[in-house]
Amino acid sequence: MTLERIEHRACFGGWQDVYRHRSQVLGCDMAFAVYLPPQAATRKLPVLYWLSGLTCSEQNFITKAGAQRYAAEHGVILVVPDTSPRGDEVANAEGYDLGQGAGFYLNATQAPWSTHYRMYDYVAAELPALVEANFPVTDARAISGHSMGGHGALVVALKNPGRYRSVSAFSPIVAPSQVPWGEKAFTAYLGEDRNAWNPWDATALVATASERLPLLIDQGGADEFLANQLKPELLQAACAAAGHPLTLRVQPGYDHSYYFIQSFIGEHIAHHAAALNA
Amino acid sequence: MTLERIEHRACFGGWQDVYRHRSQVLGCDMAFAVYLPPQAATRKLPVLYWLSGLTCSEQNFITKAGAQRYAAEHGVILVVPDTSPRGDEVANAEGYDLGQGAGFYLNATQAPWSTHYRMYDYVAAELPALVEANFPVTDARAISGHSMGGHGALVVALKNPGRYRSVSAFSPIVAPSQVPWGEKAFTAYLGEDRNAWNPWDATALVATASERLPLLIDQGGADEFLANQLKPELLQAACAAAGHPLTLRVQPGYDHSYYFIQSFIGEHIAHHAAALNA
Repeated sequence: MTLERIEHRACFGGWQDVYRHRSQVLGCDMAFAVYLPPQAATRKLPVLYWLSGLTCSEQNFITKAGAQRYAAEHGVILVVPDTSPRGDEVANAEGYDLGQGAGFYLNATQAPWSTHYRMYDYVAAELPALVEANFPVTDARAISGHSMGGHGALVVALKNPGRYRSVSAFSPIVAPSQVPWGEKAFTAYLGEDRNAWNPWDATALVATASERLPLLIDQGGADEFLANQLKPELLQAACAAAGHPLTLRVQPGYDHSYYFIQSFIGEHIAHHAAALNA
Repeated sequence: MTLERIEHRACFGGWQDVYRHRSQVLGCDMAFAVYLPPQAATRKLPVLYWLSGLTCSEQNFITKAGAQRYAAEHGVILVVPDTSPRGDEVANAEGYDLGQGAGFYLNATQAPWSTHYRMYDYVAAELPALVEANFPVTDARAISGHSMGGHGALVVALKNPGRYRSVSAFSPIVAPSQVPWGEKAFTAYLGEDRNAWNPWDATALVATASERLPLLIDQGGADEFLANQLKPELLQAACAAAGHPLTLRVQPGYDHSYYFIQSFIGEHIAHHAAALNA
């Protein structure tokens, strides 16, 4: 598999790079970002995967989150994929919340989406294999994300016991089966049968999780999507019922934006670094 | 003068706001950003003005520089204007380097620019007066900027002895009279007579500066504009000849982007905070 480096910029003593490659599972060209902190020049480092939200590409997090400073401080490599398959040959929809930019980190089963929309396989398997074959990384992995990407991080971690040392999320869609964004996407990608939705819903997954990986979630108290789309209380109730460890912090005044993420990403990276270096 | 708050987002315990107002000197509506760190809730704070580069608005720095963390740490208010007058009634040009988004922080004397392009008066006088009348600020001011905005910061500070406690710049256009970006803009805004350019050229201004305010400049060593547009050696020679204090740091590997700015903005804010709180 050929990796083409399309961006290469010095940042906090390391390198903020972007690569393009042909994805086998998605059947299209994909871009992903890698931040290599200064320590990567001399040794292997653990990796934090970041999954972005609706409308984002691999660019939003690397330009707006201010995460590189903390990654350099803790010696953690950041890997940031795009949020869906891309290209003229890839199915799309009118809205911002379905199709390109809105892959929901699942494997679609319904036409026309099932041809390319396999972001779960991409994020959980193809991309890590590619990273582990081409960059100076250890096998210690963590995962985090925002909004749709927070949903993705929780689902990918819960479906792969033992694979991630830690998981966190900002403003995640914790119960996609029960909110408008998720119902629209899951109906299109997975069909009308709601039983097929449970394997892609963190609130459903915690009920049967075989590994009790602690969940760290930060949620803005003034988030404009809190009441209708995010509903962290649904995950909180499911975790309480299952005895699944959850730290849910509601941060008063914060909204859904990258100003919220940049304010707390340092604490998340410190949290992951502690687990990755344990 | 009416200030309308059009953005208000929690960030590092403070608020990242954007305001719109009618500018008297520019004759158009303008937006500017203000970051109020948490300390601003209880006391007056000093202000760091930031001037952005070509193509930028008030948004680029506040979304990409990661500066709010350091402003919160040091208790400094950030004020970030747009880079030119704006609007359908404001003269414009085809290129990215003249007209809207490219005001060069001067007062234009040539038609059609002289009607609205008075960014020097806006940045040096109208905006600080507005800020000082409406926000919890002391009269301690610092100024910094990037590229065209680095030029602006140096020129505004050099033309106003005693007004700024400190000045710094990232990748500034230090000698606009001698490089293509500056020659194009100054010819349009100021006319063909190069004698009229000297009051807007930092390298010319240091020769006659009455105040020896130290200049701090960071310059990326791999900046794609270094050799043709930035030429920091011209300012270095002028400072050496005049005995003007200059700290010019060439940072190997860094380019012209916000990845460079975010890597060193913490050091600049610490530098300004030391002067502002002295």
